[in-house]
Amino acid sequence: MQNKGKQASMIKKKYLISPGPTPIPESVLSAAAEPIIHHRTPEFSHVFMEVTRGLQYMFQTKEDVFILASTGTGAMEAAVVNLLSPEDEVIVLNGGKFGNRWACICREYGLKTRDIKIEWGKDYPKEKLRDELSIRPGFKAVFTTLSETSTGAVYDIKGYSEVIKDKGGLLVVDGISGIGAVPCPMDDWNIDVLIAGSQKAFMIPPGLSYIAFSPKAWACVEKSSLPKYYFDAKSAKKSLKNRTSPYSPAISLIIQQKKALEIIMEIGLEKLIEHHTILGKATRAGVTALGLELLADNPGNVLTAVKTPKGIDGFQIIDTMHSKYGVYIAGSQAPHKGEFFRISHLGYISRFDIITALSALEMTLSDLGYKCEFGESLKAAEKILKEEDLL
Amino acid sequence: MQNKGKQASMIKKKYLISPGPTPIPESVLSAAAEPIIHHRTPEFSHVFMEVTRGLQYMFQTKEDVFILASTGTGAMEAAVVNLLSPEDEVIVLNGGKFGNRWACICREYGLKTRDIKIEWGKDYPKEKLRDELSIRPGFKAVFTTLSETSTGAVYDIKGYSEVIKDKGGLLVVDGISGIGAVPCPMDDWNIDVLIAGSQKAFMIPPGLSYIAFSPKAWACVEKSSLPKYYFDAKSAKKSLKNRTSPYSPAISLIIQQKKALEIIMEIGLEKLIEHHTILGKATRAGVTALGLELLADNPGNVLTAVKTPKGIDGFQIIDTMHSKYGVYIAGSQAPHKGEFFRISHLGYISRFDIITALSALEMTLSDLGYKCEFGESLKAAEKILKEEDLL
Repeated sequence: MQNKGKQASMIKKKYLISPGPTPIPESVLSAAAEPIIHHRTPEFSHVFMEVTRGLQYMFQTKEDVFILASTGTGAMEAAVVNLLSPEDEVIVLNGGKFGNRWACICREYGLKTRDIKIEWGKDYPKEKLRDELSIRPGFKAVFTTLSETSTGAVYDIKGYSEVIKDKGGLLVVDGISGIGAVPCPMDDWNIDVLIAGSQKAFMIPPGLSYIAFSPKAWACVEKSSLPKYYFDAKSAKKSLKNRTSPYSPAISLIIQQKKALEIIMEIGLEKLIEHHTILGKATRAGVTALGLELLADNPGNVLTAVKTPKGIDGFQIIDTMHSKYGVYIAGSQAPHKGEFFRISHLGYISRFDIITALSALEMTLSDLGYKCEFGESLKAAEKILKEEDLL
Repeated sequence: MQNKGKQASMIKKKYLISPGPTPIPESVLSAAAEPIIHHRTPEFSHVFMEVTRGLQYMFQTKEDVFILASTGTGAMEAAVVNLLSPEDEVIVLNGGKFGNRWACICREYGLKTRDIKIEWGKDYPKEKLRDELSIRPGFKAVFTTLSETSTGAVYDIKGYSEVIKDKGGLLVVDGISGIGAVPCPMDDWNIDVLIAGSQKAFMIPPGLSYIAFSPKAWACVEKSSLPKYYFDAKSAKKSLKNRTSPYSPAISLIIQQKKALEIIMEIGLEKLIEHHTILGKATRAGVTALGLELLADNPGNVLTAVKTPKGIDGFQIIDTMHSKYGVYIAGSQAPHKGEFFRISHLGYISRFDIITALSALEMTLSDLGYKCEFGESLKAAEKILKEEDLL
């Protein structure tokens, strides 16, 4: 009998319901197990260009999208160092851990950085940005975030774009966790620099990031004097003409991205965004049915951040979900550790992954003494998820 | 009958005999096909620290070795930006494409760069460096290359270290293609910064690079004022204390690296270097038996660069090897395209891979009208390879 518990724990089925890394489709996983091919071959150039075209589709742009062998933070740094020169004035909309990262990078490169701190989860309406730009006519760029992964908030990129268009300057958007899950058409919305990361809606492991520049942004790239080498956009542009990257590409990840983009393009971007919309709606309905409170004023469909109920230890929620039920959801990050938790609906997540997450949450809350009726969140979610016909 | 040729081509077996990417052991390939795990879990932290320890073994250092989500060029840039400040004087030993890369990065960051151009394949004895240092007493660092992948030349890192020790300043070594194949014990040789890349003797795909700093280098890191964010060594050091990296790690590649390091550590570094020594010796014996000439004065055991024989088109050698025989060897890079070719013996390469490469080379040379006896290179190589008991 003593052994029984141990055995049960050893065969526990695991569920990754996190906003990065996201689960990877089985056929994309097995693509990484194929023997590696050399990157200076027509065979790999073909893969490379197919991925580039798939990324253009995801970004909804006719501009080149470059594949960087780095995680998302590398692409953020690439945006900063390619666009600007020392002493340039920039505005950062900082609504969480990743908004804050823009501010850190800009300051590190000696830019005059107006760091607009938005309370975590709160909205920042475009009117506020309009006021801000009026008193800073010399600003060169606004750095913002489509979906702030640390809070689940989605910001009004389209609105910011309209405001910036009136005032001049560049709009730089961290779309790392948002692209593919919430709308962000680069060309239609006049976004000047858009970046993304592979371990999000792109359905592959971390290790690649993506970046594209508008014609207006390229004009700034030409004038930029900040130092750069590995992330130099002009080198990337020159190499892309030869169907390659300037330095060794991360071959196996790019091959996986080709496979994942095939899946995504078969679904279609519009449908994929609709899928995330339904999962997001169901998750919010589920957690609110348990009497729980959402963190974000304007919660996106990438992930749902839920405030830790009073009297419950936030760390215990994550830990119990993970260790007792095998369901890995994300906690909250510094400086708000333990204050909320995050259920992801990003990437290769099905309706039953949401059911699983909510079910494990109900069991966990029950373990921790929070009063709620078993099945209440599932009941609310099922009504919405029943209409879903994807993944 | 017309179909026969086409079918034969479709089932052609492929051989990757290139100095990066190198072939990947089957068990390391399949490790990438496992479902992904989250990086902020004890499970992944364990993997991360095992890899870190394995890298210390490969570097022969007791210092921390950091895992960067970038290819080798990213680690080169990391070395420059973490050690130095604008206007610092540095010396670059530039004997090929990768030595030249050091010079490009240093200049981009506004360093006073003494770019010592060494003819491709020629040696640079330590006495020359001693003379150079005498006239530049203010130099902060010497940037050099263990194995210059573009030429196959190996330089006297141990000798340079002795010279630099007398004069002060830092020794920074690009060990990307060399570590694991030729000796380069970081601590014993007083190397201040050593870097490596995953797709070389480390036997996994490209996408990770590795970097370590000596205590003397750390003192410079503290004083360095060049801007950096993604490649900031102080952030990496702080995160390593928490058994993690500052930004999302490239999870699947790190898991593959753990598996590959297990294989490497079972072989043992000394034995692995001996293996490369035997393969290098056999390859050189093979090609010289065909009357071909080596490029490097001091050819290493990473790869063998062979001069294109007179009257033969260098591009045709590579193309025929690849398209007719399915054997991918590397050509020569700009500005020496077509002048030589490179047979790799790096990483997961067995004695029979060398036999295969030499056999395909004999067939190719025969196709192109170069006069040589079939089997001559194999005869010379076999005598040496017979004594080999690895891979």
